[in-house]
Amino acid sequence: MVYKKTRTPYAHTRGDKDQKLKIMVLGGLEEVGRNMTLMEYGQDIIIIDMGLQFPEEDMPGIDYIIPNISYLKGKERNIRGVIITHGHYDHIGGIPHIMPKIGNPIIYTARLSAGIIQKRQEEYKNSPKLKFYITDENSKLRLGAFNVEFFRVNHNVPDSFAVVIKTPVGTIVHTGDFKIDHNPINDRPADLNRIAQVGSEGVTALMADSTNAEEEGYQISENVVSEELERIFEKAKGRLIIGTFASLLNRVQQVISIAEQFNRKVIVEGRSMKTNVEIAHKLGYMKIKPGTILEIDHYNQRDYPDNKVVIVGSGAQGEQNAFLVRFAEDEHKYLSVKEGDTIIFSSSVIPGNERTVQNLKDTLARKGAKIIHYKLMDVHAGGHAKKEDLKLMLRLIKPKHYIPIEANHYMLNINGEIAENLGMPKENIFVADNGQIIEFTKKGGKLTKEYIPADYVMVDGLGVGDVSNIVLRDRRVMSADGMLVVIATVEYKTGRLIGNPDIISRGFVYMKENKKLIESTRMKVKKICQDHDAKSPAFDDLIKNKIRDEIGQYLYQQTKRRPMILPVVIKV
Amino acid sequence: MVYKKTRTPYAHTRGDKDQKLKIMVLGGLEEVGRNMTLMEYGQDIIIIDMGLQFPEEDMPGIDYIIPNISYLKGKERNIRGVIITHGHYDHIGGIPHIMPKIGNPIIYTARLSAGIIQKRQEEYKNSPKLKFYITDENSKLRLGAFNVEFFRVNHNVPDSFAVVIKTPVGTIVHTGDFKIDHNPINDRPADLNRIAQVGSEGVTALMADSTNAEEEGYQISENVVSEELERIFEKAKGRLIIGTFASLLNRVQQVISIAEQFNRKVIVEGRSMKTNVEIAHKLGYMKIKPGTILEIDHYNQRDYPDNKVVIVGSGAQGEQNAFLVRFAEDEHKYLSVKEGDTIIFSSSVIPGNERTVQNLKDTLARKGAKIIHYKLMDVHAGGHAKKEDLKLMLRLIKPKHYIPIEANHYMLNINGEIAENLGMPKENIFVADNGQIIEFTKKGGKLTKEYIPADYVMVDGLGVGDVSNIVLRDRRVMSADGMLVVIATVEYKTGRLIGNPDIISRGFVYMKENKKLIESTRMKVKKICQDHDAKSPAFDDLIKNKIRDEIGQYLYQQTKRRPMILPVVIKV
Repeated sequence: MVYKKTRTPYAHTRGDKDQKLKIMVLGGLEEVGRNMTLMEYGQDIIIIDMGLQFPEEDMPGIDYIIPNISYLKGKERNIRGVIITHGHYDHIGGIPHIMPKIGNPIIYTARLSAGIIQKRQEEYKNSPKLKFYITDENSKLRLGAFNVEFFRVNHNVPDSFAVVIKTPVGTIVHTGDFKIDHNPINDRPADLNRIAQVGSEGVTALMADSTNAEEEGYQISENVVSEELERIFEKAKGRLIIGTFASLLNRVQQVISIAEQFNRKVIVEGRSMKTNVEIAHKLGYMKIKPGTILEIDHYNQRDYPDNKVVIVGSGAQGEQNAFLVRFAEDEHKYLSVKEGDTIIFSSSVIPGNERTVQNLKDTLARKGAKIIHYKLMDVHAGGHAKKEDLKLMLRLIKPKHYIPIEANHYMLNINGEIAENLGMPKENIFVADNGQIIEFTKKGGKLTKEYIPADYVMVDGLGVGDVSNIVLRDRRVMSADGMLVVIATVEYKTGRLIGNPDIISRGFVYMKENKKLIESTRMKVKKICQDHDAKSPAFDDLIKNKIRDEIGQYLYQQTKRRPMILPVVIKV
Repeated sequence: MVYKKTRTPYAHTRGDKDQKLKIMVLGGLEEVGRNMTLMEYGQDIIIIDMGLQFPEEDMPGIDYIIPNISYLKGKERNIRGVIITHGHYDHIGGIPHIMPKIGNPIIYTARLSAGIIQKRQEEYKNSPKLKFYITDENSKLRLGAFNVEFFRVNHNVPDSFAVVIKTPVGTIVHTGDFKIDHNPINDRPADLNRIAQVGSEGVTALMADSTNAEEEGYQISENVVSEELERIFEKAKGRLIIGTFASLLNRVQQVISIAEQFNRKVIVEGRSMKTNVEIAHKLGYMKIKPGTILEIDHYNQRDYPDNKVVIVGSGAQGEQNAFLVRFAEDEHKYLSVKEGDTIIFSSSVIPGNERTVQNLKDTLARKGAKIIHYKLMDVHAGGHAKKEDLKLMLRLIKPKHYIPIEANHYMLNINGEIAENLGMPKENIFVADNGQIIEFTKKGGKLTKEYIPADYVMVDGLGVGDVSNIVLRDRRVMSADGMLVVIATVEYKTGRLIGNPDIISRGFVYMKENKKLIESTRMKVKKICQDHDAKSPAFDDLIKNKIRDEIGQYLYQQTKRRPMILPVVIKV
């Protein structure tokens, strides 16, 4: 077998019998998102995916979380390449932040994914120009000790690939996000023969998507969604508005094809959805007839009556600033909801967004729109393997070991049980944590008790990793009960308190309506200051602590709230 | 028909041809929760339910929301009674706060509901002693102009009743929360004959539960859940831990009965669940054999091996301080998770709690427990009518008008469509907003465009309604990007800035690691102060505004964060 030689600038040893393959998953074993896997053999490291995760509820103000790459510090020269399975943010979102820190290695990925990554990179002006090597199902790469191939899987964006990594100690298969769809939209079905062939050559370990491992049966084919959408198109007398994720390109393709069938023009709205459609179309990944797309500034009701228009846009999760939200709130430049609109939510709701989505639906319903969601009519086929898809993959790949990835811990367990039920010995199933080292030698594999750093790196505005737990804790405290600044001005020479202490509060009680409480607090502070000798060197710390404790307690008694108390002593 | 006469201390007119019945729903038309309905005819007012709602995501620090009772101000003497349909917090939670403000009228409710309300009242020492009149399916009350009767429905707590209100302009039926269960656990089936009889006497309007109106088919019978639970009991070799809501008393009953069947002792954990079980047991609403309940302080592994024990507790929503959370975090005095435990989540997840529940499951799974949730095995039957249940109710009651209640707006629409599909004219279906007045006369009904106040009343600690939008907005700002206090001390006589300005920040950046940023900010403040004449009367406001604007902009440029900036000028 001839592998395409890629530049491997540094020497590396290979074939040593005792040498170990280390697999370290930096993100995706304790969450859905932030997917990133390292494989290290001797002096060679490859990286699979580099995603972001949306923040947890107790991380106010955080934009998102990226993988922790401390382990790669000092090993930048060993990185032989970054492989990206597909172009979704939970697999590519860390790229602008991480690539400059690891020497900007080559990215190996399919054409569409490269286009999406490239486009996003333009938003990060300080990030270096990325280097791509385009791969597909025929690619054979030699990345240091690793020979890498790909096979096609289905997801909800075209060009999703699983990765086959041939290492000196055996073959590892990483599915990326996948489902098996025999009737995909605008995409080829997962290549079962090729998967079977990979399996028949012997696979040491399969790392497989656990996102939907809890669900019985097979994932629904995108084709089923098409049929449902057609039924809705048939019935709708007015405009159709379809909200989905900007990244679900296959869904957008469906809408466009069905619209063409029903002679409706399609308006694509939402910046990232527009961008994605443009890239995919330019690269030949979307089939759109000339004249189907209607630019929003050409839209008018005279030429395009309601039953001749479909609007497809982002925002089905109620994301701020997304099209559907601006549309609902009458904040869109050209479009607003009207009686007779049919609005389809064509995406499942991400945990944590449920209330926001409910409010969005209310706003739309109030303006006379009819709401259709997947509970009422199945307009969403997920992009992830369900139980039976996973069984099919396991049966074809026939791995010796199984490593469930890409979900919360309890879901990894459930995915592991699928392999166990198919007869895999439990000790061959590795349910690992982020950062936990999984080792393979020629003799076998083990889940070690060693960990590399994999804790959160939070991105907040321009800051990456600079929001500490202390900062977050402060945000949480202030968000629950507000805060109170107490300023005591003291004459340096005499220790005399000058005037009354100043009190400023925000988010605690409305000061104008609570003058009595503020006044009694002020008097208490005054007393604390007067009871102590300002000339003593310990004065500042002493009264600060006293103010924090005693005022804190007093306010809790009065209000059952615990605002953050910030005492300030100013000496003049 | 002879109605039991209850004290109706004030005269009221009745029978005037033009007199109107006003129905005003104060909560439950724009949310799930905070249910409260007023009915007013002449000088007579009755209230149905008095619930609380849990706060929205953008209300940090708020404990809960209760209905706004401004409309009742000055009309306290007209209130003829408060009718409570069942003992869940979204129907009773406002009682301790509202009853003292409306003259503490008599509460008409079933025995178990009264017990639960009474028990909760004990936590509110400043609230008055409540007056109860116990009702059941045979009760006939005369409350001013209203003759009130009840019929039995099913829910997931015993003693759930719908209310039949006979008014001079026609009969109104209010379902409360309901489902129709032909095989309920420890409860009688909804009384279909009685419902049919009410219907055949003529009903002007039906107000019906919309919570599950989106779901196809009939609600699952509790009996189905029993069968699933039995299967789990059969298989489990270790301890069984069942998490549910403290208020789902029927589920607790099921667990107890099945445990008895399998010779397992039952430990009930979680304060409110224990309390509810005690009340229900004392009042004869639970069947528990002597010796089944095991007190936690008598539990030891020698006498009670793992396969002889079931623990049922609260916290399946990941509620802080609830049993299941303390159990998972090793913070329970007696119990901790161990390998071999089977943990059943026997409740649906409330929108907004999904992530918390996922984290809880992870924690439990990590400690070796097997997790079973309803997705894997159906262990939850909801307490609310699905589409077919609603159709059955509509067919039996045969109302002239339909008023969907108890859900978000778009769900009310969906419920309304059910009646429309059964042939009710659209103009007879009133999808109202909170506070919107619905009027009935002998001639007919209409949804007016008039509103009474129904906006949020937020409870935070001891404060009821004192957290304003300003306070909330401040909490949100501080929670997103923290805050920065800037203190400039100025000599009154000369206008000279004394020393350098003080800067304190919390939740913005970690100050110790950002000394340069803080220092450059300080210098900018200094310059702003020095550029202005401190003796000018406008100095304070002027430089405060300047600091807010310019420092805000500077920090945003540097960090892309927008902390709240609090400028303080101290003159000495």
